[in-house]
Amino acid sequence: MHSFQELSSLFETQFNKRHFPKEPAHLYDAAQHILQIPGKRVRPVAVLMGNELFEEILPDAYQVANAVELFHNFSLIHDDIMDKAPLRRGIPTVHINFGENAALLSGDVMLVRAYEYLAQIKTTYLPAVLNLFNKTAKEVCEGQQLDMDFEKRPSVSLEEYVGMITLKTSVLLAASLQLGAILGGARGNNQQHLYEFGKKLGIAFQVQDDFLDCFGDPQKFGKQVGGDILANKKTFLMIRTFEVANAEQKEQLNFLLENSHPNKVEKVLQLYKACGADLWAQQLKEKYYTEALHHLEEVAVISNRKEALKNLALYLMQREH
Amino acid sequence: MHSFQELSSLFETQFNKRHFPKEPAHLYDAAQHILQIPGKRVRPVAVLMGNELFEEILPDAYQVANAVELFHNFSLIHDDIMDKAPLRRGIPTVHINFGENAALLSGDVMLVRAYEYLAQIKTTYLPAVLNLFNKTAKEVCEGQQLDMDFEKRPSVSLEEYVGMITLKTSVLLAASLQLGAILGGARGNNQQHLYEFGKKLGIAFQVQDDFLDCFGDPQKFGKQVGGDILANKKTFLMIRTFEVANAEQKEQLNFLLENSHPNKVEKVLQLYKACGADLWAQQLKEKYYTEALHHLEEVAVISNRKEALKNLALYLMQREH
Repeated sequence: MHSFQELSSLFETQFNKRHFPKEPAHLYDAAQHILQIPGKRVRPVAVLMGNELFEEILPDAYQVANAVELFHNFSLIHDDIMDKAPLRRGIPTVHINFGENAALLSGDVMLVRAYEYLAQIKTTYLPAVLNLFNKTAKEVCEGQQLDMDFEKRPSVSLEEYVGMITLKTSVLLAASLQLGAILGGARGNNQQHLYEFGKKLGIAFQVQDDFLDCFGDPQKFGKQVGGDILANKKTFLMIRTFEVANAEQKEQLNFLLENSHPNKVEKVLQLYKACGADLWAQQLKEKYYTEALHHLEEVAVISNRKEALKNLALYLMQREH
Repeated sequence: MHSFQELSSLFETQFNKRHFPKEPAHLYDAAQHILQIPGKRVRPVAVLMGNELFEEILPDAYQVANAVELFHNFSLIHDDIMDKAPLRRGIPTVHINFGENAALLSGDVMLVRAYEYLAQIKTTYLPAVLNLFNKTAKEVCEGQQLDMDFEKRPSVSLEEYVGMITLKTSVLLAASLQLGAILGGARGNNQQHLYEFGKKLGIAFQVQDDFLDCFGDPQKFGKQVGGDILANKKTFLMIRTFEVANAEQKEQLNFLLENSHPNKVEKVLQLYKACGADLWAQQLKEKYYTEALHHLEEVAVISNRKEALKNLALYLMQREH
């Protein structure tokens, strides 16, 4: 059994290579560029952990982990085009660096490359792996569409937001774990419980993300605190505040959203606190985290094997950036 | 054995359905829209023909044919975004109709849907089918990138242009035939010869396309004759004319490309004729067509079975639109 850190370094060692031919350089250099930006590689490592929960890690698990990481980066490239995002983790996005056309096409070719990795695994696992991968890929696209749809709507319910977040970010973590479990030979309910563990954990992760954007330590957070507020993004905190605010607070919030007040971030944060959205978010995170752990309990393997996943969950919940 | 027309209608009957869920509507309506535009469906029918050349058509052939048609439409949607094309076959393109973001994302989800169809075929065929599909998908992306690269270059050699056209359009026709052949149980060289038949035919088709854009009958052609000339596109005829023109003709051609002369199309066509590029293009088309048929001859099945493919080749060569 390996820890997250050990698996992360095992993954990185074999992933740190050129995944594409040299030519056409405009296409493949753009694709390769984003893969070299250091990251936590949570999703591909989740594949390895899902496998190791049941059985020694198969060589095929690295192919699937590569596919998941390529898929994730494909979605980042295309999302950044759609969101017109200039930066990702402080680094210019692919479409800024290489132009929109090369970004679009390098995303496409990255998705195909992901399927190339999948096609290399043992035929016995291939249909189950492909089916889960395809279903998840469609869901991630649906999540991105809903996210864009929600931006244009005056209001979004908490339930709708959780549904969107689940598709856009949680299902890929959930599927990564289950893909590993398929390779590890997990039967029936075990796969489903592991999937649910990942899904709930992913939602908890997003609650934490929205919370840190408002209340994170600027020294540790690594990006501008209040970025979501400045962009008028509908987040867990914004949606909750609108749900519980009184008439006067609602009016204030609407005013702040519609006008560019010099202390906008500070003023909105005050409203969040006045409405208790900060404490509520922490409780919501705990709720999903607890539900996630409950599903992990239900996986029928000896408790010892679950330690690495428990530590991963704790690490993701306690992170400050 | 079926004719192209019969297979086209068999294909259409099962393809003419909704391939996507209802929601999110912004995503899936955009994807569905382009699939309903009537077309010749040459590529998916090529899958069926490649299968039937060797063996009765398997149900799996329709899954692969669907995948090929979805892949083709994915590439059209994304190419039209990159090329900023307002129309395709006289109908507003997806990004014009639904916006660039929905077009980008619906292309993505269409590619994933293609893989969903592939994942349904018998496991014995799956690795070979996936490998050829993936290789081809990457090549089509490479072709599109080269096409965009060439637009920015002052000159492109005939060899480079043929290489780009092969990737951008021919390999998908070639692969469609071979995918069918895989399902039909074709062995060794038979697959390769059928692939080469499709590849050469695809190049001949493109020569004809470039020719019709210049010298097609406006009544039959269905789009503006001279569109490539007005867009300063590097085509077989343009490249050839630059290769054989004398100094004075070259100067004229450059002048026409750099300035907007009211009789630009007419003047360029005169230069094409003066340099014999029109006759040369017809000969080049014949050359690739003959090479294609030669490869078909080399496929080891009784001649009778080849009639449908021969007719398809003839039809594609004689078309006037």
